[in-house]
Amino acid sequence: MPDPASKLHWEDFAPGRVFEHGDLLVTREDIVAFASEFDPQPMHLDEEAARQSMLGGLAASGWHGCSMFMRLLAEAFVLRSASMGAPGVDEVKWLAPIRPGDRLTLRIEVTGTRPSNSRPDTGFVQIAAALRNRSGVEVMTLKSSIMIRRREGAPA
Amino acid sequence: MPDPASKLHWEDFAPGRVFEHGDLLVTREDIVAFASEFDPQPMHLDEEAARQSMLGGLAASGWHGCSMFMRLLAEAFVLRSASMGAPGVDEVKWLAPIRPGDRLTLRIEVTGTRPSNSRPDTGFVQIAAALRNRSGVEVMTLKSSIMIRRREGAPA
Repeated sequence: MPDPASKLHWEDFAPGRVFEHGDLLVTREDIVAFASEFDPQPMHLDEEAARQSMLGGLAASGWHGCSMFMRLLAEAFVLRSASMGAPGVDEVKWLAPIRPGDRLTLRIEVTGTRPSNSRPDTGFVQIAAALRNRSGVEVMTLKSSIMIRRREGAPA
Repeated sequence: MPDPASKLHWEDFAPGRVFEHGDLLVTREDIVAFASEFDPQPMHLDEEAARQSMLGGLAASGWHGCSMFMRLLAEAFVLRSASMGAPGVDEVKWLAPIRPGDRLTLRIEVTGTRPSNSRPDTGFVQIAAALRNRSGVEVMTLKSSIMIRRREGAPA
């Protein structure tokens, strides 16, 4: 079943293309709810314990940061693309704490593309992404490859 | 403020040490709730759309898998260790879909350790982790380094 042609396909992701999207407000309640379910370390749950930690105050789980990255990535282009998913993640760096009240902005740059060897209808799009807070501080960077359908199959 | 000596410290993580922990039940409601908040792609939200996708049926967001990995990691040893957090993730591979009804087990192997250059009270512990379902299929693997306090500072 072909995707509507209006969707972004592999050919639309030229290296150097940049997407920017956000902002996403992070509340104290969001931070504690995520940590309670997935990362119940005191520094993500309790202000006093967090002050004693390397983070110096309540901060979101790094995996919460990754999950918010995904939300922004979906809104930035994935939901209007012929994306098929991703085989994994090449690298994540947690650079600075994500605090209650932060508003996060996503910047994505396409760093490379290549056709799939095994699926002639598909290609890979390599991205380098950065989440920044309102002060412009990079709180997280990430590198990954996404599988996206090609408009036309590979030439025979 | 020193940690209680009973906690696991950097010296306790000899290369080759293995931790196993689980099982964690994944429900359809869990999958849809996570996806609704963080990864609203149809293949994580809707059975019919998922059947048309590469996943062949409803499956958890890869980031949901990472978040459940963190939950199991916390329970496996982080919450009873002098862990200080992690600077990032070296690699994630999403190998097979996580389905409603799956029960996930975590296996972690310590693959290396090194003292921190900048913090004599701290060391890094490298881990290779795998999430498996009840059939023994690896659904996800992950490599990372965790910062853990040393029992004694480095020799002068």
